[in-house]
Amino acid sequence: MERMAAGSISQLHSAADVVRIFSLENRLRQMVRFEWALSGALEDAGLAAKGTAAAMEPLLNAEFVDRGALLEEAEKAGNLAIPLVKQLTAAVRERSVDAAYSIHLGATSQDVLDTALVLQAREALSAIVADLEGLTKRLAERAREHASTVLAGRTWMQIAAPTTLGLKIAGWVAALRRHRSRLDAAAERALVLQFGGAVGTLAALGERGADVSAALAKRLELREPELPWHTHRDNLAELAAALAMLVGTLGKMARDVSLLMQTEVGEVLEPSGAGRGGSSTMPHKRNPVACAAILAAATRVPGLVATLLAAMPQEHERGLGNWLAEAEVYPEIFVLASGAVAKAIEIADGMEVHPERMAANLAASRGLPMAEAVSIALAAHVGREKAHSLVEAASHRAIEGNRSLRDVLLGMAEVRERLDEAAIDRLLDPHNYLGSAQRFIDRALGATNASR
Amino acid sequence: MERMAAGSISQLHSAADVVRIFSLENRLRQMVRFEWALSGALEDAGLAAKGTAAAMEPLLNAEFVDRGALLEEAEKAGNLAIPLVKQLTAAVRERSVDAAYSIHLGATSQDVLDTALVLQAREALSAIVADLEGLTKRLAERAREHASTVLAGRTWMQIAAPTTLGLKIAGWVAALRRHRSRLDAAAERALVLQFGGAVGTLAALGERGADVSAALAKRLELREPELPWHTHRDNLAELAAALAMLVGTLGKMARDVSLLMQTEVGEVLEPSGAGRGGSSTMPHKRNPVACAAILAAATRVPGLVATLLAAMPQEHERGLGNWLAEAEVYPEIFVLASGAVAKAIEIADGMEVHPERMAANLAASRGLPMAEAVSIALAAHVGREKAHSLVEAASHRAIEGNRSLRDVLLGMAEVRERLDEAAIDRLLDPHNYLGSAQRFIDRALGATNASR
Amino acid sequence: MERMAAGSISQLHSAADVVRIFSLENRLRQMVRFEWALSGALEDAGLAAKGTAAAMEPLLNAEFVDRGALLEEAEKAGNLAIPLVKQLTAAVRERSVDAAYSIHLGATSQDVLDTALVLQAREALSAIVADLEGLTKRLAERAREHASTVLAGRTWMQIAAPTTLGLKIAGWVAALRRHRSRLDAAAERALVLQFGGAVGTLAALGERGADVSAALAKRLELREPELPWHTHRDNLAELAAALAMLVGTLGKMARDVSLLMQTEVGEVLEPSGAGRGGSSTMPHKRNPVACAAILAAATRVPGLVATLLAAMPQEHERGLGNWLAEAEVYPEIFVLASGAVAKAIEIADGMEVHPERMAANLAASRGLPMAEAVSIALAAHVGREKAHSLVEAASHRAIEGNRSLRDVLLGMAEVRERLDEAAIDRLLDPHNYLGSAQRFIDRALGATNASR
Amino acid sequence: MERMAAGSISQLHSAADVVRIFSLENRLRQMVRFEWALSGALEDAGLAAKGTAAAMEPLLNAEFVDRGALLEEAEKAGNLAIPLVKQLTAAVRERSVDAAYSIHLGATSQDVLDTALVLQAREALSAIVADLEGLTKRLAERAREHASTVLAGRTWMQIAAPTTLGLKIAGWVAALRRHRSRLDAAAERALVLQFGGAVGTLAALGERGADVSAALAKRLELREPELPWHTHRDNLAELAAALAMLVGTLGKMARDVSLLMQTEVGEVLEPSGAGRGGSSTMPHKRNPVACAAILAAATRVPGLVATLLAAMPQEHERGLGNWLAEAEVYPEIFVLASGAVAKAIEIADGMEVHPERMAANLAASRGLPMAEAVSIALAAHVGREKAHSLVEAASHRAIEGNRSLRDVLLGMAEVRERLDEAAIDRLLDPHNYLGSAQRFIDRALGATNASR
Repeated sequence: MERMAAGSISQLHSAADVVRIFSLENRLRQMVRFEWALSGALEDAGLAAKGTAAAMEPLLNAEFVDRGALLEEAEKAGNLAIPLVKQLTAAVRERSVDAAYSIHLGATSQDVLDTALVLQAREALSAIVADLEGLTKRLAERAREHASTVLAGRTWMQIAAPTTLGLKIAGWVAALRRHRSRLDAAAERALVLQFGGAVGTLAALGERGADVSAALAKRLELREPELPWHTHRDNLAELAAALAMLVGTLGKMARDVSLLMQTEVGEVLEPSGAGRGGSSTMPHKRNPVACAAILAAATRVPGLVATLLAAMPQEHERGLGNWLAEAEVYPEIFVLASGAVAKAIEIADGMEVHPERMAANLAASRGLPMAEAVSIALAAHVGREKAHSLVEAASHRAIEGNRSLRDVLLGMAEVRERLDEAAIDRLLDPHNYLGSAQRFIDRALGATNASR
Repeated sequence: MERMAAGSISQLHSAADVVRIFSLENRLRQMVRFEWALSGALEDAGLAAKGTAAAMEPLLNAEFVDRGALLEEAEKAGNLAIPLVKQLTAAVRERSVDAAYSIHLGATSQDVLDTALVLQAREALSAIVADLEGLTKRLAERAREHASTVLAGRTWMQIAAPTTLGLKIAGWVAALRRHRSRLDAAAERALVLQFGGAVGTLAALGERGADVSAALAKRLELREPELPWHTHRDNLAELAAALAMLVGTLGKMARDVSLLMQTEVGEVLEPSGAGRGGSSTMPHKRNPVACAAILAAATRVPGLVATLLAAMPQEHERGLGNWLAEAEVYPEIFVLASGAVAKAIEIADGMEVHPERMAANLAASRGLPMAEAVSIALAAHVGREKAHSLVEAASHRAIEGNRSLRDVLLGMAEVRERLDEAAIDRLLDPHNYLGSAQRFIDRALGATNASR
Repeated sequence: MERMAAGSISQLHSAADVVRIFSLENRLRQMVRFEWALSGALEDAGLAAKGTAAAMEPLLNAEFVDRGALLEEAEKAGNLAIPLVKQLTAAVRERSVDAAYSIHLGATSQDVLDTALVLQAREALSAIVADLEGLTKRLAERAREHASTVLAGRTWMQIAAPTTLGLKIAGWVAALRRHRSRLDAAAERALVLQFGGAVGTLAALGERGADVSAALAKRLELREPELPWHTHRDNLAELAAALAMLVGTLGKMARDVSLLMQTEVGEVLEPSGAGRGGSSTMPHKRNPVACAAILAAATRVPGLVATLLAAMPQEHERGLGNWLAEAEVYPEIFVLASGAVAKAIEIADGMEVHPERMAANLAASRGLPMAEAVSIALAAHVGREKAHSLVEAASHRAIEGNRSLRDVLLGMAEVRERLDEAAIDRLLDPHNYLGSAQRFIDRALGATNASR
Repeated sequence: MERMAAGSISQLHSAADVVRIFSLENRLRQMVRFEWALSGALEDAGLAAKGTAAAMEPLLNAEFVDRGALLEEAEKAGNLAIPLVKQLTAAVRERSVDAAYSIHLGATSQDVLDTALVLQAREALSAIVADLEGLTKRLAERAREHASTVLAGRTWMQIAAPTTLGLKIAGWVAALRRHRSRLDAAAERALVLQFGGAVGTLAALGERGADVSAALAKRLELREPELPWHTHRDNLAELAAALAMLVGTLGKMARDVSLLMQTEVGEVLEPSGAGRGGSSTMPHKRNPVACAAILAAATRVPGLVATLLAAMPQEHERGLGNWLAEAEVYPEIFVLASGAVAKAIEIADGMEVHPERMAANLAASRGLPMAEAVSIALAAHVGREKAHSLVEAASHRAIEGNRSLRDVLLGMAEVRERLDEAAIDRLLDPHNYLGSAQRFIDRALGATNASR
């Protein structure tokens, strides 16, 4: 059953590991793993025959599952757990009749499904965080490398005043570091056992509920929650929101790069390569395919997070439909986040920087983006208000006459009285008007190594 | 590459046809079909060698495609069309060198991808509309059947006053009929050819663009749009929104049924059956699995539609990322809608109605839901205000004393002066307080057959 | 109680009429109007004293309402209707005791609130549609005016091949015309009376429900629905979705204009003017403030529509919370749509077009966007494949050598054998490679006048 | 300009403080406060005349603002800051010409607007967190009080097995505590100064940027970020998402209460009171108005969060439209969250609990929800499988014969051999089948006092 549509393939390849982690195959494996661990915990508590978990070990690969039958029954039953437990019990019974007796004892379907999801999430998160780490490191290097690479700062998509590529990249880095903190905090809360039985009391285990729960958590290397969370989905929603925000920042990075890569701008380019973003009939084109994939992810995640939030008010001890709705959404968010990080790494690794185009684009505005610098220098001589009106007049003259601000300023007596040609040239040099850019970069990158 | 998560399986089975329609396999077939039709149209215009389309016919099943290579190249190229056209050209060349020359002539990748999507949407819509038709018919029968089946009308989830199951179902039917109209209108606009070439001018075809476009549309049995719509996605968004609204109404139906199916209410039940909604440890339970699947769909579609709307402001002549984002969303919406309709048919076909529980639940409110009827009858004698205050007093006495409204009324002299016991009993009989229910049902169902 | 935040003010001014239509004041007026029309209808049916509606007429301005008390009671009651009817009854009683008896007879709170919302929607829609009409007309003129204004077509935000500004605008026009059709169809369905009483049966009116309903609809000049739609919100959702799609198209237009307005592109500019989009410290900047306002609206509406879709599965005969959730969302969508149309009109009216920048930007790509034209011309002589490889080689040589495609082609013997200098110049002129652009414009604009 | 629609009023009253905090009035005050603090910081750095901040102090109430003019100019300028700074400068100049020179020096509009928003958010958050604290405490008391109040646990909206009201409430409490942690972490990140000047370099302040920034932050009692975050909105998005998740949990609580409050269930009721949730024509009704308001908020927030996430990929050094889109969304989320907490407090304070209805509803299932308890007891004697099949048979007999499980069990020899009447009665008593409920409650509430 192949559900993928064409357009999304690029992302999926980049996120192949995470796609595999959220495959039905791996889900079944994690579900069997839960039952295996539960059997062990029950053994410890004397609620299952010795050797029960051992009897289940050969089945941990989930190869015994008759998948066709499973899916068919799952539709009627309303979830995968019921038919899986049935097939698992049959498979165990062939090995040990005693072991089969205690399978799933005390658990409800959602215990299996949620814990399996948590195990998948842990695996996926580990892959994503490792990539995020690499990305952050690579971008931090880039930021240092380009700490003095001057380009136009743009506001409202208009050239405003100069900044540096290093500062721009440092902004991405600082945000990625915050996402890392968020993911850690969310994982701490979300990666916990689900085990409550039919209505969350573990009543079927009598006095032994807490012991079995503790042993089960230990075997799965998961933290125990304070109480079962069948209809409290805030932890999972938080994790998804943290991933979505990460994608949002990567979307901002992709937005910046794709704007810089426009034919008319040409300042920063995605890496090129065989078959990459090319057009057979238009050989001059170099499409920002990685940016497009990231922006696609950034377009998709908000709606998915909204679904998870909308699904939160779940009924009593088991949600009706809302819980079901989450199941497809989590994998999507992990896959999109993972793909977006992978694409960002491609950009970070291979991006081409064209300082000459940066200089040319700034210069094409004929010095006008430097007007503020001149105004501030003049203010020391004539006061802020006068300085402002002089420079405003100069700017307007430059715009209307299609002249450079330098020419106009040089021709204005009131200016020349205070600033000589060299001074004006110094003021009009973007490299001299970067304020605290370096300091901000240092702060952002310095913190990369420091603990938070 | 299996992306499906566990929870959603029930829906996918119900929507198996639509899942297949949106499979990668079928997508490739529709893309080849576009290229085949284009070749034919080019032949007609003298822009391709005679026999070009014929040479492509054996390839229409897309079996020639090396899928692994395709997906790998697609990631680099940014879409499926570029590598597919390459493989197709190679496959055609083996058959006819001449035919290979004109493949894809004049077209851009998005022409192929969008038209293939339109062809898939047409196929899926046809399946959904057929099911919707069946559902509407079945529910209309149910509404007629239960036109006199009295149950409590509930507002704010509180018993308010009596209504009929027929009227409730007629409300669903009327909404489903409106969705049918919307789907027809949306399909009329959305199921059109995409063909514009690199930037939407068909420049590569010189003077012959319009002729080729017309012939291509004819071969694919699609309407021609006024102009290419590469970055105008309103028609597809409309179609998706219409499907989402359909799911919203089915969600309302599922909400109603699941509330009526609560253990404490027990008035309408989903069909039962082997393995259906049961619980091994709780044999008394009968879970509303179809309702849950529909409500899950209703929880998911809003976020997906939001994504499509958010993706609308696409850049210039080809969107960057936003177009890509749509690709996964359309199939999801079609699959969810199709599954929801299928589940609703299960409910419509097999729902159990328990009039005795309906009567009992109404009766448990000790006549209080009929207070308004008494008040209106009294008003004819004592004026509306006086009537209201008498009945309000009676109601409060009934509530506080835990007595029936009947008992209280019979004991109130001011009431008994105007209404004898038989009159009071008549007023307290829910069957006598249904107002225009039958008329509304007739209107809603009559219109089912009438044109709109 | 002022809830507006700063950033959104620009839109609200532009949408001042619609803001007023959705004010609490107007809402109260429309609610009183419902009660007045109901009184008249009850009179006609003999269920209210003669003169009841007349007694209410002086109150139609809703000035009698004690707003503080109303809001306070509304919070406890859960809606505005209950306290308003109370205050209205008191105010009428001062004028005519008889008239006060029948106020609100047969109606439920939601009848008043929904019908008032429909009346507000009708008023707002009328304003929006009038503006949309004007916008479409103005843009159609612009499209004709610029049918031959050549600029670069851009795909993936890269210059691809030439197109015309007229075609770009015609694309906007065609979409706006489709939105008009959608709005008309949605209005036809949505602008209907709500009148069903407590549970939708009009039981309190006995046999006279249908007559009263018909008379009420007539007085309000609204169509009657087949049956009450208290918990069927598809019609309102459709209307909102249609407005959202309109905003999506306007967002696409704003996206295009803002990209064209970038400092480095400078091809199309929003109108300038005193205080408009300027920056005091950066006089060279001209911010696309209208585009920003439209894009803000396009960013907001998807989430609002998702809320309405999510609110569709309403419980039984009156929703719990979901209905309440809609109340704030409708006004937002209307206001955002109205503001976006108004801003688009500003752009359509005053946009500056710079054909010289368009030509220069195309030329800066040194003829490469015309490669396809040369390839097609050569194909007539050497076959498509050979032509393609020649031009591809030429393009690569031009890119690598930073030369113009013209120079390279003139230097290639294989090319010169088939194409002389004049032919090459003709092929490299963007005006000669516009394909069906004019025809598409004609189709799109021609249809503006035709009925659909 | 009144934008509120009717339905939402109940929430707004409850959230009156937060509505006021996000009013335009308070926004203007916070903006002036930023400028005042900036002036002070400039003084400290020798960049403004002594006494500048002092001259501004009388203006901190923002009463000098000509609001009509402000809004009109704001629309053209694209934001509120430009005209406000103009009016402020004029007002200061009347007091001190020198002071007027340095107003807003080094800052950009977004510095003012974002910092004002942060100040508003801090104020609102403080109010919400205080209420949340109170709510959590009150619910923790309730949970303890009802630790032994047995009611039916319900899964899929079907009675499943017994649980306690205390455990249900403890689940809410545990989630609310997690939200508190999230809000604290989000606030720590989000409540920081915005100060970067035109493009985020503070270039206009030359070498003094960092000093001024530090002094400014100190005066506003805000933390300094590593670097300006004009187009990095993750911190604000996180705060909004945390509030949305809080609302999601309150929605879950409201869902539970409203289901328990259904006429047919009647186990837990919202507090009653004059004018509260009543119906004039249906005096028996008691509408869950607080639940409805909370559920309305829970329906609204997901779409709003989606908007903020969708707005994250902002362009370069200043977003185009996406930043603008956030402005209306933040206040909505704060207001909805604040209102939802206030309504939840009403419920927590005044909810009526009906243990007799709980017992009766459980009993109405004729002992079937206790089947698992019997099965487990039997398993000790006959093995799990045999026990299960015996109890399954008994349950089916009870269901089909409409008999109590007790009667059936007493009549089954195989059961009676192992369990006598007293044992069966003990097993069928819900109080004896609560497993770890008390332990879970202790864990959840114990942690309330402990640090995390």
